[in-house]
Amino acid sequence: MTIPEQDPRDAEAAEPTAPVVSEATNRPGISRRGLIGWALGSGVAGLAVGAGGAAAVAATGVLSGSAAADQYAFEGAHQAGITTRVQDHLHFASFDMMPRASREDLISLLQDWSYAASRLAKGLDVSASGAVGGAPDAPPDDTGEAQGLTAAGLTITFGLGPSLFTAEGDRFGVAERRPSVLAELPAFVGDALDAAYTGGDLCIQACADDPQVAVHAVRNLSRIAFGRARLRWSQLGFGRTSRTSADQQTPRNLFGYKDGTANILADDAKALAEHVWVGEQDEPAWMSGGSYLVARRIAMLVETWDRLRLAEQDRTIGRAKGSGAPLSGGGEMTEPVFSGHAIDEHSHVRLAHPTVNEGIRILRRGYNYVDGNNDLGRLDAGLFFLSYQRSPEQFVTLQKRLSTDLMSEYVRHVGSGIWAIPAGVKPGSFVGAELFA
Amino acid sequence: MTIPEQDPRDAEAAEPTAPVVSEATNRPGISRRGLIGWALGSGVAGLAVGAGGAAAVAATGVLSGSAAADQYAFEGAHQAGITTRVQDHLHFASFDMMPRASREDLISLLQDWSYAASRLAKGLDVSASGAVGGAPDAPPDDTGEAQGLTAAGLTITFGLGPSLFTAEGDRFGVAERRPSVLAELPAFVGDALDAAYTGGDLCIQACADDPQVAVHAVRNLSRIAFGRARLRWSQLGFGRTSRTSADQQTPRNLFGYKDGTANILADDAKALAEHVWVGEQDEPAWMSGGSYLVARRIAMLVETWDRLRLAEQDRTIGRAKGSGAPLSGGGEMTEPVFSGHAIDEHSHVRLAHPTVNEGIRILRRGYNYVDGNNDLGRLDAGLFFLSYQRSPEQFVTLQKRLSTDLMSEYVRHVGSGIWAIPAGVKPGSFVGAELFA
Repeated sequence: MTIPEQDPRDAEAAEPTAPVVSEATNRPGISRRGLIGWALGSGVAGLAVGAGGAAAVAATGVLSGSAAADQYAFEGAHQAGITTRVQDHLHFASFDMMPRASREDLISLLQDWSYAASRLAKGLDVSASGAVGGAPDAPPDDTGEAQGLTAAGLTITFGLGPSLFTAEGDRFGVAERRPSVLAELPAFVGDALDAAYTGGDLCIQACADDPQVAVHAVRNLSRIAFGRARLRWSQLGFGRTSRTSADQQTPRNLFGYKDGTANILADDAKALAEHVWVGEQDEPAWMSGGSYLVARRIAMLVETWDRLRLAEQDRTIGRAKGSGAPLSGGGEMTEPVFSGHAIDEHSHVRLAHPTVNEGIRILRRGYNYVDGNNDLGRLDAGLFFLSYQRSPEQFVTLQKRLSTDLMSEYVRHVGSGIWAIPAGVKPGSFVGAELFA
Repeated sequence: MTIPEQDPRDAEAAEPTAPVVSEATNRPGISRRGLIGWALGSGVAGLAVGAGGAAAVAATGVLSGSAAADQYAFEGAHQAGITTRVQDHLHFASFDMMPRASREDLISLLQDWSYAASRLAKGLDVSASGAVGGAPDAPPDDTGEAQGLTAAGLTITFGLGPSLFTAEGDRFGVAERRPSVLAELPAFVGDALDAAYTGGDLCIQACADDPQVAVHAVRNLSRIAFGRARLRWSQLGFGRTSRTSADQQTPRNLFGYKDGTANILADDAKALAEHVWVGEQDEPAWMSGGSYLVARRIAMLVETWDRLRLAEQDRTIGRAKGSGAPLSGGGEMTEPVFSGHAIDEHSHVRLAHPTVNEGIRILRRGYNYVDGNNDLGRLDAGLFFLSYQRSPEQFVTLQKRLSTDLMSEYVRHVGSGIWAIPAGVKPGSFVGAELFA
């Protein structure tokens, strides 16, 4: 993304009179009129990118970086980053709206984020002037560390937390439109939640095959949020623990086991309709085509786990460590058989299986993480679990069932969040537009 | 690394009488006799990997994962991971010897680490029985998350900290052999060191093109250290900020600038001999062929930086953000000209340049990092600086010169360490052997 492309929607920014936000407000100079003609809220017309600067951009407006092959469209029926082939890296971020932020701030933020995300997904800088195409006496719109990199399969997925709908005084004017199923998750057996990794009014899931591209996205979107929302917590993940495409190898989690073998795949339209996408018949109507995301930061007590006998590790999971095959026999893709004694009734594979959970399935796309170590010299390692489902009730049912999971002795849920994931963005619109319609 | 290979050096492990460490000691069952015939120290012969298990390994002893193309030999004249083409990911770990650990523990640890590292560099599990090839009633030697992955260009580089040589009572028996230049670094202007990221008796730098491979290496080497040394601190890095090969693109740091343009490259034998490798004429003789590593965790105040005008960012660095060219003109590879007024005398490029530092150069191979965010919603982001030099004095001179660096307003050195990096390992020997000879 070395050279900013001249986006047709930025044409107005080339006019010296375009209402670019001033430096004094400390918001990056992104033209919101360029997006959908939304009138500028509290912005003060100031340091506009002059016609000269924009012309210079146009003159060099060649898309140097990304080949289309590693790009996923931001717009679509559903948001990208859910059924998308799971990329190698994650930067997840939870945000809170600023205490005095209004409905207008929320809307403008979602608009600006959508505009930036649509550019980032193409391997472009966050605005037409980008990292180096602006005026030299203005801070660059883009922080610049992704110059020269491709889109790297970047997807940016936005979510709306329950706290948005229950804000004091309903300052965002959305209380009546809260999906009845969108509420803080109940406490589960074994929860050890840390407020530093829990909750948030908004979330961004950025996935890419280059971690610098995912980090660049979250950093720049955080910057765009300045004055309206701020980062509450964030998490990097380095190794996917799931797959959504049949041509992806099943990866391994930090217990050394294949993870995500029985995940819902992107080409299984029936399962997606039944388990992942909010349907037209579901309430509320504005969530149609959306989903619900649950994130759990699951610390894995790897030192303890590593001292278990191999047979006990296998019993706990219900699968063989090498092949990933269920202990009832066959290969990795063989369906486990629970009727015999091969698979322990409290094994993870059994308790998470649809056959003992009223057919419930979820779409997982978690990542391994390691965040240094604690004072005892133990790695702060685990699984950043992300699951998409048509209703949060699916996750709640499964997680309750896992209360007797043999694996629960070796994991601690230390962070948690839930967000409504609106449907995909229509061209010229913004994420969540249906909520405000 | 799905299937453990039968290594010729493990032949003894196939004998039921091989002195494999018992489960009771909680050390993994790695045969030290397999390495160089070192007599077992405090180990108790116990749960040996039986002949049957070893035979099963031999029967499936096909190296499935790594192609030789993504492998770097662990043995050699110099340790790998210094001039090696900079890989995409880093897991760095600092260790302290346990309070009662002895010279014998230190030697056996370096032997076991060398043995495991030589296997990991080939894309193998840490031992012949590996993740799934051992007895089912024993904990696996290998934690297993790298099964199925290639070597991914893994290099493992070991270092010895000054505190090893100054330990109370000289319990490691190395005080007399301390290199006179190996001492804790002096305090520098602007240091804000956090003990949680500073110092350490030993270090491991694991670099790989797959982060899971680097993490797997550090995790398993930590596990092997159990009872002898423990993790003091560790750091993941996701984006290289340097290059050591002319065919590598210059990467960007989190200020958005190309970093490492003028680095010492692997094919510049003259510069390496002059600036990186300890020579035969240098003291002490046991360090010949080695180097000295300085690590600095440099927090970057990215939010503040991002509000600077582009021209001010350029002035601070002394280079253009887009091209990386010096402000005195030309392209990225053009030598900067300091005689005019184009480059500020306190710019980073000038103060770090050999021409104002008595010709001093260092070999850098740092990484970007992002470790979540702080309470103010600011990313905990920065540069994990790693430099190799023939003498620590090179780094000290440069860092003192940088005390008036314009960039110092936007960075904080929050972690620090220095280690002697012994020469490469000879076949059949172990890292640091010359120190104990």
